[in-house]
Parts: sequence; structure tokens; C-alpha cells
Amino acid sequence: MDEFELIERIVARLRDVASGRGVVVGPGDDAAVLEIPSGHQLIVSTDTLVAGRHYPDGACADAIGYRSLAVAISDLAAMGAKPAFATVSLTAEELTANWAERYAGGLAEAAAAFGIAIVGGNIARGAESVTVTVHGHAPNGAAITRAGAQHGDRVHVTGYLGGAGLALGDENLGEWSLVALRDDSPLKRYWMPQPRLKLGVALRGIATAAIDISDGLSSDLDHLCRASGVGCEVDLNKIPLYPGATAIDAVAMGDDYELAFAAPRETTGALEAIARRHGVAVTPIATLRNDARPGTTWFQDGVPVDVRPGYRHF
Amino acid sequence: MDEFELIERIVARLRDVASGRGVVVGPGDDAAVLEIPSGHQLIVSTDTLVAGRHYPDGACADAIGYRSLAVAISDLAAMGAKPAFATVSLTAEELTANWAERYAGGLAEAAAAFGIAIVGGNIARGAESVTVTVHGHAPNGAAITRAGAQHGDRVHVTGYLGGAGLALGDENLGEWSLVALRDDSPLKRYWMPQPRLKLGVALRGIATAAIDISDGLSSDLDHLCRASGVGCEVDLNKIPLYPGATAIDAVAMGDDYELAFAAPRETTGALEAIARRHGVAVTPIATLRNDARPGTTWFQDGVPVDVRPGYRHF
Repeated sequence: MDEFELIERIVARLRDVASGRGVVVGPGDDAAVLEIPSGHQLIVSTDTLVAGRHYPDGACADAIGYRSLAVAISDLAAMGAKPAFATVSLTAEELTANWAERYAGGLAEAAAAFGIAIVGGNIARGAESVTVTVHGHAPNGAAITRAGAQHGDRVHVTGYLGGAGLALGDENLGEWSLVALRDDSPLKRYWMPQPRLKLGVALRGIATAAIDISDGLSSDLDHLCRASGVGCEVDLNKIPLYPGATAIDAVAMGDDYELAFAAPRETTGALEAIARRHGVAVTPIATLRNDARPGTTWFQDGVPVDVRPGYRHF
Repeated sequence: MDEFELIERIVARLRDVASGRGVVVGPGDDAAVLEIPSGHQLIVSTDTLVAGRHYPDGACADAIGYRSLAVAISDLAAMGAKPAFATVSLTAEELTANWAERYAGGLAEAAAAFGIAIVGGNIARGAESVTVTVHGHAPNGAAITRAGAQHGDRVHVTGYLGGAGLALGDENLGEWSLVALRDDSPLKRYWMPQPRLKLGVALRGIATAAIDISDGLSSDLDHLCRASGVGCEVDLNKIPLYPGATAIDAVAMGDDYELAFAAPRETTGALEAIARRHGVAVTPIATLRNDARPGTTWFQDGVPVDVRPGYRHF
């Protein structure tokens, strides 16, 4: 099938999610023309998933589409941004109309779920990978970075960790399409991560720093601490666990797309209310302190433990 | 070398081009925080270059860096947008500190040349490819799309076509680093395309439609005609040629990153002044007419000719 026919098929499948608030010119021109609400800043992040590395070779096209968009959007959640626009660049050795439409179908399902418009993209021949760039916005000065945490703030994590890691042990991980995934399955955690978007927005003005723990809490909390110039000791027994996961694995495995964030102790009541309102567990796991060597140390049952570093891209 | 060390090296090399107008938070957080001037729209485009397909395997890292950013920016030129921000996603099987720094050096040189800030990115292990997403802006309603050309408008192309195509015939195309490229060489046209940014901005309010002819004039002019619902006959003898290029090849080869645009006949004087001011050739090549089957037909010396379609990504 001809490139332009393939693009037409993909664009047709994405039509319902290619327009919307702020989209003046969507896919099909040299570039998209977009509008950001006045008084708001633009928030931009990019993520690449490589077949055989970030997901199994030969995985279902719809699952790849959904996951590629969801994981990129998780970075917007960590900033307290509202999603607005995405571009999607697909590289594949072969591209059939059927595969392309299923892939676009997965993208469309995620785009509708998270309220983001697909405004442009690219297809090229090469080893299979997907690069998604997401755009969101937040009121001027409201975005939450990694760098504002203070001595005395408490660190919290959202949700339950280790679910997606359990899915990685499934031999048939690559054979699941979206419709077959059960709500209570770790496989659904892996293929259909649910970025903490509403919670991220609710944390504006409350969290002093936040990070998406996509590479695993052990790496990502370390990044937050270093960026903020603080340190913390984390007790593995305090990590909220997905059923069946162990803490030592859960903090080192990525792919959960939960958030870690810091907030002053006096916000505890506000955080409990936010957690209830959004139906998301928010668990305090440590207290930050000034430290000449910023970073994290770990212990369990009063004994220091070595945790593996999180996901390494190289 | 560890991923985070590699990223630190790349970020350090890009430091001078990672800040600037509108960059509130640059590389190193979950996402960049950016500002678009009020009264302006955001213009976004994404492009992927795959090693061995869009440039030779084993090419010099600095040349890859420069070219990957320049070709993406060309889409902003076609919209009449001013460049502002870029994210860069690099996938490579192996990544040494030396290669990464040379690559970042090429990116930095292009970013400085075109006035764009590198605000974020990603590295991942996989077959070598680069995906660049560029962001620009234009005053509300001023962006030039492919779709506004009218019956009676004249089609123009910028510059001289076929130069980059000549470079593709060079057996040693992949061995050139930026410093070795001579100004008058087709190799420089290939590795260091110069997007027509100032010309694109000058065309606001004058051009009724424009397109980046990155895939070759034969394909891209066809896209403009179809998007605008018009047709044209183009005489190959009118194509402005790079020294040594032939028209039949020049219209089918991509990689020149010139613009094709439509403008009403009465703007001829204004276009001549713009061409002089910016030192860029602007050559009228055809007149558009209403057509029940929009598109382009080609002839030479009064005889219809078949031109090859432009670059096919699939």
C-alpha cells in the first residue's frame, strides 16, 4: 500500500480525536496550528518506545498505540498540566493497512480517554518504534517541577506499585489486544497505563515537586531529590504494593506510571481530600531533609538494603 | 557509559541553545515549560530520519544532528512560522560519549543558526533514528496552509532545485562532517539545508498557500493543488536548477527543503522585493486554474512528460 493511502487510513481512523479545543489546523498540512489558552504556559514532553525493548516484538498494534500515548501523557500529569495536543511518529519495517488501522484505533482510544487531540505525525520505514510528543498547558507559574521540594516535606506515591512489573513476567505479554484486557489484570496496568492527570492538576499549589515514576521509584525519586537538593530514607515496608508484587522489585521496576511528589506536612488533610475525590491512593513514604549529598537511601525492617536502579535506557 | 551520564553530556553540550526567549523550564524535568507570545498561535511539526534510509548508515554524528533539526524546521518555514522550541528523540544501538557530543554539537550549531531552543528529548536503545518535533509561532490567523490557493494564482519555487539530489550520488556522502563542507558544494545542500524561514515569514499575507518541497516538487506541488482544489500544468523548462542538475531529476528528488507557494498575480512586485531583500531566488513556474481533478501535469518543449513521483516513505 502506498504511503499516502496509509496516511489517509490512519488520519481517517483518528478523525474524531484530531480536532477539538485549540486545534485550528490538524493533521495533513506541513504543521499543525494550535491555540493555548491565554494566561497559560505550554508544557511539552517526548517519549520513544522501541519494539523488542520497551514492549514485546510483534505486540498487538492497538495495544502499542494506546500505551505509546498514555506513557507520554504521564509526564504531563507529573507537571500538573492538562493534556491538549500530541504528534505521533511511527517507524516500521512493513506497514499493512490492517496494522495501521488497529494502531490508530489504539491511539484514538487513548486520545479520547485522556482528552488529547492527535494533531500530526510521521511514518517512516525502519525498525519498529513510536515517538510521541505531548503538549499540555497549565496556568502561568502553576506547573510542578522536580526541583521545589524542601526540608521537612513528605514524599508520597500514588496508586500501588509493581503491577506492570508483574505483567513483564507474562510470556504472552505481546499477544494481548485492548479488548481482551481485564480490569483487574496486571496486563491492563502494562498496556493501558492511566496517567494521574486529574490528581496532577489537583496537586498544583500543594505539591512542591513531582515526578512520573516511569523508570521505577528507585531512580525517579533519586532524580527528584537531586533536583531539589534534598535527601530521604525510604522504608520498603511503606511502599504501597499491587497485589502479588514485592517491594524490592516494585521500586526497581518501571512502567507503573504513578507519581511521586513532595508536599509540606501541613497539606496532609488537603491530600487526603484529593485522594478521596479522585479515588486514588496517596501514600506518604518518607520525609525529606537537607543533605550534603542529595539522593535516596533505602532500608527494610530497620536494616539498609540495596535496591536495584530503575530502568536503564542505555 | 551510563544513560544519565550520556544525557548529562548531551545537555551540557546543548546548554547555550537550551534557554532563551519563552523557555521557562528547559531540559531535565518531566516536561519543558514554555511561553508563546500573546496573540500568537502555536505551530507544531514532527519529522523522523532513519539511518540507512534518510541518510547513510555510519554518517558523521554532527552532520546528522544538524540535518535532523534543519529538515524539521523547514516545515515551520512553509507555514510562515518563527521557530521557537524543539524536542529531539535519538535511538541508537550504541552510544559513545564522543558520538553523543558530536551529535549534540551539530544540533547546537543548527539551533543557533535558526534561533530555536532545544527544550527536551529522549534517548533509547534501538536501530538508529532521530525524531525531531519543532514548535514555532505566528500571529493569530497568519499561518500559511496548503489549502488557500485560488484559480489565477501563480505558483513559485524558492532557490534552485536538484542540489541535494546531486549529493545523493556521492559515494562518500556519509563521511562528511560539518566543518569539511564547502559553501558551493551539493554536499552542503544535503547536510546543512537552510530552511527559508525569513522568506516564509515575509510571505504572510501574500502567499495563499505554501508547502515545503522536502519530498520533491512533483509530489509536494500535487499535495498543495489537491488541498486547494486547483490544478496546474508545469513546464520543466521553467524549473530553477542547481548547477549540474536536470529538471526531470530535480522535480522528483527531495531533500532540497525549498518552498513552493501560490500568490495572486498582483503580488509580483512585492515578491520581487522580498526575493531581493532576502537574497533568495523566487521563480514563477505555473498558473493555477480551477480543475475538476485537482493536481499537476508536466510538460517540456510543448510535450507532456511523465515525472517520477517524489520520495516515498513506504
